[in-house]
Amino acid sequence: MAETKNIAVLDSSIVDRLPISSKTLFEAKAAQGLTFEAIAEALGRSEVAVAALFYGQAQASPEDIIALSKILKLQERVLTEQLAGFPDRGRAGPMPPIEPLIYRLYEIVQNYGYAYKAVLNEKFGDGIMSAISFSTKVEKETDDKGDWAVITLRGKWLPFSRF
Amino acid sequence: MAETKNIAVLDSSIVDRLPISSKTLFEAKAAQGLTFEAIAEALGRSEVAVAALFYGQAQASPEDIIALSKILKLQERVLTEQLAGFPDRGRAGPMPPIEPLIYRLYEIVQNYGYAYKAVLNEKFGDGIMSAISFSTKVEKETDDKGDWAVITLRGKWLPFSRF
Amino acid sequence: MAETKNIAVLDSSIVDRLPISSKTLFEAKAAQGLTFEAIAEALGRSEVAVAALFYGQAQASPEDIIALSKILKLQERVLTEQLAGFPDRGRAGPMPPIEPLIYRLYEIVQNYGYAYKAVLNEKFGDGIMSAISFSTKVEKETDDKGDWAVITLRGKWLPFSRF
Amino acid sequence: MAETKNIAVLDSSIVDRLPISSKTLFEAKAAQGLTFEAIAEALGRSEVAVAALFYGQAQASPEDIIALSKILKLQERVLTEQLAGFPDRGRAGPMPPIEPLIYRLYEIVQNYGYAYKAVLNEKFGDGIMSAISFSTKVEKETDDKGDWAVITLRGKWLPFSRF
Amino acid sequence: MAETKNIAVLDSSIVDRLPISSKTLFEAKAAQGLTFEAIAEALGRSEVAVAALFYGQAQASPEDIIALSKILKLQERVLTEQLAGFPDRGRAGPMPPIEPLIYRLYEIVQNYGYAYKAVLNEKFGDGIMSAISFSTKVEKETDDKGDWAVITLRGKWLPFSRF
Amino acid sequence: MAETKNIAVLDSSIVDRLPISSKTLFEAKAAQGLTFEAIAEALGRSEVAVAALFYGQAQASPEDIIALSKILKLQERVLTEQLAGFPDRGRAGPMPPIEPLIYRLYEIVQNYGYAYKAVLNEKFGDGIMSAISFSTKVEKETDDKGDWAVITLRGKWLPFSRF
Amino acid sequence: MAETKNIAVLDSSIVDRLPISSKTLFEAKAAQGLTFEAIAEALGRSEVAVAALFYGQAQASPEDIIALSKILKLQERVLTEQLAGFPDRGRAGPMPPIEPLIYRLYEIVQNYGYAYKAVLNEKFGDGIMSAISFSTKVEKETDDKGDWAVITLRGKWLPFSRF
Amino acid sequence: MAETKNIAVLDSSIVDRLPISSKTLFEAKAAQGLTFEAIAEALGRSEVAVAALFYGQAQASPEDIIALSKILKLQERVLTEQLAGFPDRGRAGPMPPIEPLIYRLYEIVQNYGYAYKAVLNEKFGDGIMSAISFSTKVEKETDDKGDWAVITLRGKWLPFSRF
Amino acid sequence: MAETKNIAVLDSSIVDRLPISSKTLFEAKAAQGLTFEAIAEALGRSEVAVAALFYGQAQASPEDIIALSKILKLQERVLTEQLAGFPDRGRAGPMPPIEPLIYRLYEIVQNYGYAYKAVLNEKFGDGIMSAISFSTKVEKETDDKGDWAVITLRGKWLPFSRF
Amino acid sequence: MAETKNIAVLDSSIVDRLPISSKTLFEAKAAQGLTFEAIAEALGRSEVAVAALFYGQAQASPEDIIALSKILKLQERVLTEQLAGFPDRGRAGPMPPIEPLIYRLYEIVQNYGYAYKAVLNEKFGDGIMSAISFSTKVEKETDDKGDWAVITLRGKWLPFSRF
Repeated sequence: MAETKNIAVLDSSIVDRLPISSKTLFEAKAAQGLTFEAIAEALGRSEVAVAALFYGQAQASPEDIIALSKILKLQERVLTEQLAGFPDRGRAGPMPPIEPLIYRLYEIVQNYGYAYKAVLNEKFGDGIMSAISFSTKVEKETDDKGDWAVITLRGKWLPFSRF
Repeated sequence: MAETKNIAVLDSSIVDRLPISSKTLFEAKAAQGLTFEAIAEALGRSEVAVAALFYGQAQASPEDIIALSKILKLQERVLTEQLAGFPDRGRAGPMPPIEPLIYRLYEIVQNYGYAYKAVLNEKFGDGIMSAISFSTKVEKETDDKGDWAVITLRGKWLPFSRF
Repeated sequence: MAETKNIAVLDSSIVDRLPISSKTLFEAKAAQGLTFEAIAEALGRSEVAVAALFYGQAQASPEDIIALSKILKLQERVLTEQLAGFPDRGRAGPMPPIEPLIYRLYEIVQNYGYAYKAVLNEKFGDGIMSAISFSTKVEKETDDKGDWAVITLRGKWLPFSRF
Repeated sequence: MAETKNIAVLDSSIVDRLPISSKTLFEAKAAQGLTFEAIAEALGRSEVAVAALFYGQAQASPEDIIALSKILKLQERVLTEQLAGFPDRGRAGPMPPIEPLIYRLYEIVQNYGYAYKAVLNEKFGDGIMSAISFSTKVEKETDDKGDWAVITLRGKWLPFSRF
Repeated sequence: MAETKNIAVLDSSIVDRLPISSKTLFEAKAAQGLTFEAIAEALGRSEVAVAALFYGQAQASPEDIIALSKILKLQERVLTEQLAGFPDRGRAGPMPPIEPLIYRLYEIVQNYGYAYKAVLNEKFGDGIMSAISFSTKVEKETDDKGDWAVITLRGKWLPFSRF
Repeated sequence: MAETKNIAVLDSSIVDRLPISSKTLFEAKAAQGLTFEAIAEALGRSEVAVAALFYGQAQASPEDIIALSKILKLQERVLTEQLAGFPDRGRAGPMPPIEPLIYRLYEIVQNYGYAYKAVLNEKFGDGIMSAISFSTKVEKETDDKGDWAVITLRGKWLPFSRF
Repeated sequence: MAETKNIAVLDSSIVDRLPISSKTLFEAKAAQGLTFEAIAEALGRSEVAVAALFYGQAQASPEDIIALSKILKLQERVLTEQLAGFPDRGRAGPMPPIEPLIYRLYEIVQNYGYAYKAVLNEKFGDGIMSAISFSTKVEKETDDKGDWAVITLRGKWLPFSRF
Repeated sequence: MAETKNIAVLDSSIVDRLPISSKTLFEAKAAQGLTFEAIAEALGRSEVAVAALFYGQAQASPEDIIALSKILKLQERVLTEQLAGFPDRGRAGPMPPIEPLIYRLYEIVQNYGYAYKAVLNEKFGDGIMSAISFSTKVEKETDDKGDWAVITLRGKWLPFSRF
Repeated sequence: MAETKNIAVLDSSIVDRLPISSKTLFEAKAAQGLTFEAIAEALGRSEVAVAALFYGQAQASPEDIIALSKILKLQERVLTEQLAGFPDRGRAGPMPPIEPLIYRLYEIVQNYGYAYKAVLNEKFGDGIMSAISFSTKVEKETDDKGDWAVITLRGKWLPFSRF
Repeated sequence: MAETKNIAVLDSSIVDRLPISSKTLFEAKAAQGLTFEAIAEALGRSEVAVAALFYGQAQASPEDIIALSKILKLQERVLTEQLAGFPDRGRAGPMPPIEPLIYRLYEIVQNYGYAYKAVLNEKFGDGIMSAISFSTKVEKETDDKGDWAVITLRGKWLPFSRF
């Protein structure tokens, strides 16, 4: 039973604002007792990308669908149908976030947003860090003070076009 | 003149919502033609932390004030007075951000927030990544596709107390 | 299967805020494996107009209904009934947009809105570009830097009446 | 006097939310009686880009500053100082826009946003049209029905990274 | 079929925020192929008032119910039950309106609100034009420039009480 | 003194959000003790248009400026300068309105918006009533029940383009 | 039938945001053709309190439940179950109110709020009028000008504690 | 000194959003040490109306101005000028109110709004209680439980016009 | 029956925004007639924590699930399944709160927020009181003035990291 | 200098939204190098109450003014004048709070609000904990895990009146 605790599941009250694939995927994940780490390994993708895919925030390639159907013991045809089309992103939760964990990330943007901008501008010039040509990962570090979560955001630098 | 372009300065129209120290610090920085990188090195702190300090979003230690007054050629007494007290954080800019660079960071939270939560919960249990017992840095990477901005967020994991 | 990926489908979680015709049309489009390009050609209309019609944001003429029922293999009577009446526009998604692709369009308005106004006023005088007596199209261009999306907005200039 | 009407000037009540350069530039433009068309020609840039620069929404290159100081009869030193740093974009006006001309552009995003997304996704795959690696222009067409404003948006297609 | 186009029907996606009578009335109207003009004539009321009644924004008198049941071929008992009680007004659509036609009316209030107030105050003194002791109508005018919609608002002037 | 009461003046606390011309015009109007009716007659325009012009919501033609400078005893040069450029509309007051008189107009849109749309669509087809190619007037009627304010809105009908 | 008009019923479209007891109570009230006045008399409570109870905004005592079940011909057991627990107040309608009648009350707070505060502070000192230790009633007065509604609010004065 | 406490004064930080007359009136009131009760008596008006007048939310008649200038020892000419024109109501404070005393009044509308509507509709029919043809007063009652504030709202009943 | 009144139950109209476990737990609690005090004692946890767990705002340990299934007479398997995963916090009610009891807590933060910050900063330095490494309890005190609710908030002090 | 760090001062950018007394008091406090603890002792009040008084959120008694003028070396007359009148509460900062320390308190209300309500209702019945007849204090505890902040909220229980 304790193990069940280590598996993220889908809160029944947010099912309605997500695509139908979210319900299918999360239920299969719970039934198989799989972590995102295990699924990410099977797909050769990052854990965050896989979790995003489960929440309907990232696209599955045909190869992902085959791998998912195997590891989650779901019919490939059903997954193909439910994951067809292009993700309608940005809908997992409200902004500003009300979930404390997600709020902390929002607060980092609120507190350090202009500082990031100033430092990035000085390092790269006038432009932005892409959130599309982008990858991210989560790592765990442990030292004598306890555990630390390390989130890395890596985006292509896009200079503003001169026109 | 081209160099001047590489120095982040304070937009005159946001001066009013920042503490008086922001104006003092940014003007001195522009006058000395210093980047945040140079100032950060002098203070032994991260560039982002120094930029945050300039925007009134981080506290200066007495040692920081001495180092700042030297490198920026400002009177220590003036800086001490203007940087007295505790930062009133979160006020650099509006949320949701309207600045495109900062918006991209916000969008990452919006799109991947629940994915981060699911992965962090599976890795650490029920809790949050602290934004207080926290550090962050910005790095530049270059490959054949161009430049990449890499932002690292590192926060202490805080489990929810059982009570 | 890869082809299925190239067909835009209707996210199950937004069905409720659209007219019933949206579900009918998108399901038939998926079943027939048709792109908007193909349907637009059959109707002699722009792709964007046809997609807008699918989202309930544009009106179908009786001729459109006949053409749609043919190409989508739907009963003309059903389509006529579901597409009766006048579109209740503006309801496809939230504003500000949370979908990254749509947000970029919004950001263009936010960043360049006053610049467009100044330039249009100098070219045409005091008035507006109509969004009603209006057409729009999407084109794809490719050069050695990659692919470019080109969106054209063409609206009648309406001068403010003097009264 | 009638000519004065053809020059866009800065509304005194929005000066405070723009950088100090906006006031300098608009006043000089009015004093010289120049249109954005004339200034754009002098800079070799698009009219919209130049208007955006005047509103603090685009960056001036050192060459732009030289050209601007000449045509506007402003001291190069003053312009260099006021245009130093990186634009703090997105602040020209409120969103949703209250100005009727700008609102029409917003309404186009509201009404056609999902239609653009569906068509772009089918043409390009899963990604966005960049608003950074981007250019735009305004043209005037006239036919027997009257004048038409044509706005072209051209942005690099950025596919979502797989990670 | 073309005629069906001339009949306003109820968008299926807004049914839930309206009273149950709206569905009943609009379905019967569509089934009978009646315009609001025809129904208004039968009831001896203004078209706008009748449309408002259909949207649950105005009250039906017992005589209205009898007339409606006749012309719409509905059971008087059903209508009486569904139209019992007092309208819960203001709920037909969101404000600010997202529908372009309704937005134009909103924009008129936004642009001319203070002008109306100044003119009305000078004509009538300190008070308001009632929206309760009020009637409104829509007329169509045609001249060589095309069609014109004329909306008349007529409200009792209520002076602020001195107390 | 009682007469002074009949002249609308500019509330000192909203001066800051209006163009500088508003202050000039309203002060001159008060000094001359003129109503909008008198000024409108001198300009050959509607009272509402003139009041809108005073609030910076409508443009003055060169002829208007001459007439205004005469009747208000203002220097033509000053008026020309302050009224140069194109109005930045929509900024007279907040929306939703907090002023009771203006709120009543907003409430009419809220309560009758969909009813107007249904009736207009049936009378004209799919389109909007323009708020640009538009005029409006205010009239006073008196009967045995008291005074009535009659506001007429007259706008060009614009059908949605088929594209 | 005319009488039915005099009975307030529950709008079907707001049922979902109210507790289940609201539906039960309002349906029984309509079936019995009872006004709030009649029910209030049976319970020995104020009409407003009884209406609030029907909307789930006030608590029913065990005696109220007995009286309600008698007059409304409902099973006491059902009422006891549905009215168990403590009201989750504040949910009857949106704020700002969109219903014209309720908006007028809101407008009174908006217009006179600071005036009430100034007068109450001068009469009672630093504190508030309680909305909990509170009662309210509605009365009808008629004079030669027509009908007047009189609402009385009576709340305990609570001085701010000194600590 | 204790008496000073009993006089409501104007908070310096809200001066900017009120008309200039508010500052004049409140300063004179403080200088003369007068309560609203005393001023109301001199004007023959209700205390709430007088306080509203001080906050720019009610109009002063010529007679009020004479009486005010006497009791407040202000020049009649200054008052006449500052109180000219028609109040721009609704601007004393934000909504929802953040001041606890005013919030309690707002909460009463939130909690009892629908209850008031149901009871008023049953007593008067379909209409509203006017907030314009309206008066209000504040009274103090004392019993063995302490002090009670009693606010009375009295408004003309306005039935919705049938049209 | 009076006792039933002392048991907090779940309002049927908020069930949809809570996880499915909330319905299960509250129904069982009502069926068994248990207070949170009794359940908290059985779990060895604070009442507030247990109520939070019922609202889906706190996590249940495997031991909690066993204890809950016993005292509530629920199947352990059902509870384990419904309480699997990590709470999606922050969703019990809207903010600002509309429930009067919860609003009072919000008002305390609004009124005393900066005062708490100033005092905490002086006592502890630059940092925050954790809401995660945190516990809280509710106590009842009675004196001759009546009953008093005492809420204690106890959180770990987290200093901002210097980086 | 380090000591200066332990004194909370007023951020220059929020001065404008606070009463003038805030600036006077905070500047004197900084000049005297006093903590709220020291001032609270001199006044015989809680530190939080004194800090609230400095932010204009609590009233000073005549005795407080005498004590404040002594300890802060301010003229009694000036303080009396600036602290005259009744606090206009709720204006120290925005809600939701953007300051991280204050946000944590807000988050506690968001996460535990309904839990507090359920527990308080079961302990006290239907009512609220007063935020007016209320006191609060901050304490520091230290154990082997570090420092803990303990905030106590104590409010009178107010049962809803039956009427």
